[in-house]
Amino acid sequence: MALRTLLTERLGVCHPILLAPMDGVADANLVRAVSRAGGFGILGGGYGNRAWLVQESAKLGGLQMPFGIGFITWSLAKQPDLLDIALAAKPTAVMLSFGDPRRFASAIKQAGALLICQVQDEAMAEQALAAGADILIAQGTEAGGHGASRTTLDIVPAIVDLAAGRVPVVAAGGLADGRGLAAMLSLGADGVLLGTRFYASQEAAGADEAKRRICAARAGETVRGIIFDLSRNNVWPAPFTGRCLINDHARRWLGREVELLQQVERVSADYVKARTDGNFDVAAVIAGEAVGLIHDIPAAGEIVQRIVSEAERILQGQRNSSWRPAELNETAR
Amino acid sequence: MALRTLLTERLGVCHPILLAPMDGVADANLVRAVSRAGGFGILGGGYGNRAWLVQESAKLGGLQMPFGIGFITWSLAKQPDLLDIALAAKPTAVMLSFGDPRRFASAIKQAGALLICQVQDEAMAEQALAAGADILIAQGTEAGGHGASRTTLDIVPAIVDLAAGRVPVVAAGGLADGRGLAAMLSLGADGVLLGTRFYASQEAAGADEAKRRICAARAGETVRGIIFDLSRNNVWPAPFTGRCLINDHARRWLGREVELLQQVERVSADYVKARTDGNFDVAAVIAGEAVGLIHDIPAAGEIVQRIVSEAERILQGQRNSSWRPAELNETAR
Ligand SMILES: Cc1cc2nc3c(=O)[nH]c(=O)nc-3n(C[C@H](O)[C@H](O)[C@H](O)COP(=O)(O)O)c2cc1C
Ligand SMILES: Cc1cc2nc3c(=O)[nH]c(=O)nc-3n(C[C@H](O)[C@H](O)[C@H](O)COP(=O)(O)O)c2cc1C
Repeated sequence: MALRTLLTERLGVCHPILLAPMDGVADANLVRAVSRAGGFGILGGGYGNRAWLVQESAKLGGLQMPFGIGFITWSLAKQPDLLDIALAAKPTAVMLSFGDPRRFASAIKQAGALLICQVQDEAMAEQALAAGADILIAQGTEAGGHGASRTTLDIVPAIVDLAAGRVPVVAAGGLADGRGLAAMLSLGADGVLLGTRFYASQEAAGADEAKRRICAARAGETVRGIIFDLSRNNVWPAPFTGRCLINDHARRWLGREVELLQQVERVSADYVKARTDGNFDVAAVIAGEAVGLIHDIPAAGEIVQRIVSEAERILQGQRNSSWRPAELNETAR
Repeated sequence: MALRTLLTERLGVCHPILLAPMDGVADANLVRAVSRAGGFGILGGGYGNRAWLVQESAKLGGLQMPFGIGFITWSLAKQPDLLDIALAAKPTAVMLSFGDPRRFASAIKQAGALLICQVQDEAMAEQALAAGADILIAQGTEAGGHGASRTTLDIVPAIVDLAAGRVPVVAAGGLADGRGLAAMLSLGADGVLLGTRFYASQEAAGADEAKRRICAARAGETVRGIIFDLSRNNVWPAPFTGRCLINDHARRWLGREVELLQQVERVSADYVKARTDGNFDVAAVIAGEAVGLIHDIPAAGEIVQRIVSEAERILQGQRNSSWRPAELNETAR
């Protein structure tokens, strides 16, 4: 059994698993590891650090396998020429999230790359399709990092119905194991995009302490809000908020956002220091609700393999599982 | 293929689909329709209207098929003898939601009925297991009616892992079609509990206008909060809030809950009148995020059949679908 979908065909990969373009975390090393394992690695172009992008995309230029490069759309709009740097590396696809993709679509397509758009509601999906998106990512509120309020279980079938087979739809938010992949394929998605799960991998460019905290956190120990964006003076356009692990800083300010704003100079000075020091009682570990499913820090390739095998087992009904496909036509009333 | 699970075995039913015990909506007529179709109907004992319970449970007493009776636990605690009325009808199971099930567990079990507990987090699940629950329902925030904040995609695997095969786990919240059933089985659940989907059925004891609004509502047009409970002077214990369709009354008061409380006498007088008049611009239609998947008002039995056939098709990989089980061992790297 292989989980071939419209998505794996379009991207030319073996497995319907995408690495989320996590700012500061999904570097060339992690992208390579995911793509080597048969998934689709996407470089985290994030807010657009030029020197970093030049360096990391150059490493990918020679990669003899499919990969992508992702940007935060509203931030890319401030330095649009970063897109040329990305396209020079000849990515299979460019992924745009959080903002209007239209002004970048034609350059991406003219360069022969696919356009992947991450969306949080139907209006954004329509906009992305109008811009010529080749692949849609339907992101639910469970996701680590920025996103909106609709849940994965709500938004995935909604976008699948809206796309109506025209483009592959990928599910994102709260997914970390083969159960999640199998569930999303059952909902009609063509694959999954994973952030938090790959953050807790050997290759991810994150602090060891952040990875350790992701492993230690239990389900329900993340929060979506604006505290961390306020604290680092990085205000996002509506409707986007960020999901992080709940830490001392979050507990302190939750529900007191206005007060935080009033003291933002002092708070953000402390916050910047905490980030530099790697003090994650104050600095945020950006992570999603999938933390409850994450208990180790394996190699990224092993993550891909595990998820694929578990999903295949489930979809064959061979899990040590409660439901089992019985003989055909046995369906009783 | 038949979707037999630990749950269908325990309940003695053909299909892993449970009717939620919706207060005022799941009457004997709807329970019978769902159980006849091979699902498991649960009477909506709700807050505990004695005359109604006597009448509806009497209708079920003679039923030659499995069925259940459900209560809101904290409300049952005010009239504990209602449980005797329910048990006299010899239900297969009693379902308790929202509160500590311990004081009722032994009476239920001594009467030979199974104990089903609906839970919203791990602590409640532990409490239910300690009370001797035979079946757990893991309810996500997408659900219509009362519930809490964790999403279905988050809470279902968490409770499946916690139960560790000791008891069947049923998924609830945001589910309305075969995709949802297949997805929840893939996540490791043994079945699904559906409220909103069965509300929009021929047999449901709800106003036609309410059913019509559920069909018309699109995904994302519900809201979880306390406005409706405040407006009808029906304050619930924490952490429970209610999800309803967004209507004029909700739009008016969202974010102004304190102000509403200050004028609660006037507001609730108007609100009671609106309920009597069937004015659903003010009175709430209790419904969950699954409204986006609901476009018609079929017979309840047809809903069961549709969901089962679609889920079977999906799990056999025969959907006009993106993923397809290919030959075994074809798995490529
Ligand atoms: C640490 C971290 C950083 C992220 N940074 C970005 C980013 O720069 N651009 C982006 O499009 N998405 C970003 N995301 C969101 C992902 O694209 C994706 O939607 C999310 O990780 C999926 O949910 P999951 O974390 O539950 O897998 C980030 C997520 C995480 C966890
Ligand atoms: C109209 C309505 C009334 C409800 N009343 C009750 C109730 O009295 N007792 C209860 O345990 N749950 C009640 N629920 C919640 C259900 O038990 C269940 O968790 C929910 O319907 C599942 O989500 P869904 O509506 O998306 O299917 C109600 C739900 C609805 C839609």
